[in-house]
Amino acid sequence: MKHGGDILSYQHLYDGQIIDFSSNINPLGYPKILDTIIPEVLGSLTAYPDIHYRVLRTAISEYLGCQPDEVLVGNGSMEILEHFCREAQRIVVCIPCFIEYIERAQIYRKKVKKIRLPDGFRCSTALFGNELQRGDVVILGNPNNPTGLRIAEDELLELQQLAEEQQAFLLLDEAFFEFCVEDYDSVRLLHGKENICVIRAATKFFGLPGIRLGYAYATQAIAEQYAASALPWRINAIADAAGRAIFRETAYIECSKALIREQRHEMFSELQKIDSIKVFPTHTNFILIKLLYTTEDELFQQLLRHGLLIRKASSFEGVDRSYIRLAVKDQKSNRKLIETLNRCV
Amino acid sequence: MKHGGDILSYQHLYDGQIIDFSSNINPLGYPKILDTIIPEVLGSLTAYPDIHYRVLRTAISEYLGCQPDEVLVGNGSMEILEHFCREAQRIVVCIPCFIEYIERAQIYRKKVKKIRLPDGFRCSTALFGNELQRGDVVILGNPNNPTGLRIAEDELLELQQLAEEQQAFLLLDEAFFEFCVEDYDSVRLLHGKENICVIRAATKFFGLPGIRLGYAYATQAIAEQYAASALPWRINAIADAAGRAIFRETAYIECSKALIREQRHEMFSELQKIDSIKVFPTHTNFILIKLLYTTEDELFQQLLRHGLLIRKASSFEGVDRSYIRLAVKDQKSNRKLIETLNRCV
Repeated sequence: MKHGGDILSYQHLYDGQIIDFSSNINPLGYPKILDTIIPEVLGSLTAYPDIHYRVLRTAISEYLGCQPDEVLVGNGSMEILEHFCREAQRIVVCIPCFIEYIERAQIYRKKVKKIRLPDGFRCSTALFGNELQRGDVVILGNPNNPTGLRIAEDELLELQQLAEEQQAFLLLDEAFFEFCVEDYDSVRLLHGKENICVIRAATKFFGLPGIRLGYAYATQAIAEQYAASALPWRINAIADAAGRAIFRETAYIECSKALIREQRHEMFSELQKIDSIKVFPTHTNFILIKLLYTTEDELFQQLLRHGLLIRKASSFEGVDRSYIRLAVKDQKSNRKLIETLNRCV
Repeated sequence: MKHGGDILSYQHLYDGQIIDFSSNINPLGYPKILDTIIPEVLGSLTAYPDIHYRVLRTAISEYLGCQPDEVLVGNGSMEILEHFCREAQRIVVCIPCFIEYIERAQIYRKKVKKIRLPDGFRCSTALFGNELQRGDVVILGNPNNPTGLRIAEDELLELQQLAEEQQAFLLLDEAFFEFCVEDYDSVRLLHGKENICVIRAATKFFGLPGIRLGYAYATQAIAEQYAASALPWRINAIADAAGRAIFRETAYIECSKALIREQRHEMFSELQKIDSIKVFPTHTNFILIKLLYTTEDELFQQLLRHGLLIRKASSFEGVDRSYIRLAVKDQKSNRKLIETLNRCV
């Protein structure tokens, strides 16, 4: 199970609507304004999108609090990440992490230095010791996936500094940023630093995995290098139009944050009451769990029989077959999961 | 002027609707069924597209006359082309050609062997003489851009054979295939060959530059390698849905072919009557022209003042500032262009 969200492959095993806890998408769905906007922009399909995505990048810059020419846009966040893999001498990751960091590096035939996170999975500068080299691209999930943990603010500042000293580049994958407990904003914290890029996406928080819209903050020089080498017209006209609209949907944004905050709290508390699992603390909208008496496969099959799709976690390097990852969804779905889990584990 | 279709950059120079002869898109627009289908599939944006694009690839395979597992899909045809650039030892092109063949190769830091097409721009196996090496990827437009010429059937067969002998790979970019005079179908002609890939796209013929849907035929083994290294979910849900529908629009397809056939003939005849230009024969929906007494820049500015955007051709390596490329559009637009040209050159 390399990725979550693959309902199609499992639908034949359950006669009914599967609830997907394997991918961590905003349970509110996308901002409703898109139901109006998209049908209105179909005419734009007959022309190429603006090759510079000027309006889109301006909308994103206002949301991120930076300049339009500091914004990178990609066909999903992975297209942006791939650019840095191609340019890297070596990739450095902390495991467990999102599998694509390692896969993209391998596709570009880059060496991958894997640093194992300690018990509890906290990322710290100390882990990198003397490991960094010139030309390294350090890719860190912030929050990390599947652990759900943010890098502490002081650690991140130190890490950027260390990377700078070693002439390494720090690539933060913040695909789940808006779901997180409010701590700091990397774009503001690291603004102007020449060895960083902060990647985010419409995918998770804006409930739009189908639209493929990733974006990032970096210095203008980096943004220009990226644009010069990325595929032209890499974002389709519908995603372009959606991206111009969604970041202004303040009510939707606040409402989504509140929902996840509340549901994370409730779900975490309820999960902690289950003796046969160990629940890891999380800062975001998914929760890593260690199964004490069963395996991911067994539980996966059991839950699927109840129409619940979960994420087996062993495909994350550094995590064995006793781990699963659960999305935080709407209250009704979460309660069904907790109830079923209580009977299964 | 690296690409056509960039109306946005020139709109401020003309107060009115610019007619775009710089990009070669079906003047009929996209199949009208999309106006119904797209609003109906917006709900699919909340889920990841099928990571294997099973239904989409089946629809394409029926259109191409091959098996679903022989179909590659990409975020525009360039994403597919880029894959082969990454895997190549060296890229071989015939100039003039679409600039992205060379740019993509350079982004992947691959050597590019450029073979100059002879007067008249016909591509033949003889041009490659002893030039091919093991690991070469030969990228040829079929029809070529900006020349509009197809490779003759016997030459193509010979070329595939030569490439096979030299352990080289032949990548055909057939983005304009359906617009062409009916000669042969490369997918049928080269079916089963292990050193070829035939790339096409929804972009031009289906009037969908905004949707970003490229596809290709190759052997199952190549299709699997591609899928394993390409970005996951690289085609967005709207493009996926569109691709499932458009290839069955037989009436639209036939009507588009007839329109271009007729308009190419009329436009070519009318252009030939203009003494101050040399018109090159074409097999497709665009026409290369040599200006005998003016430059691309001068004519570009003149025509823009009349609301007509043309493609300056000097950015195609091997073509100087006396060349332009014109799209074949609807009769009314074409006639306006001819009339204006008659006054300008």
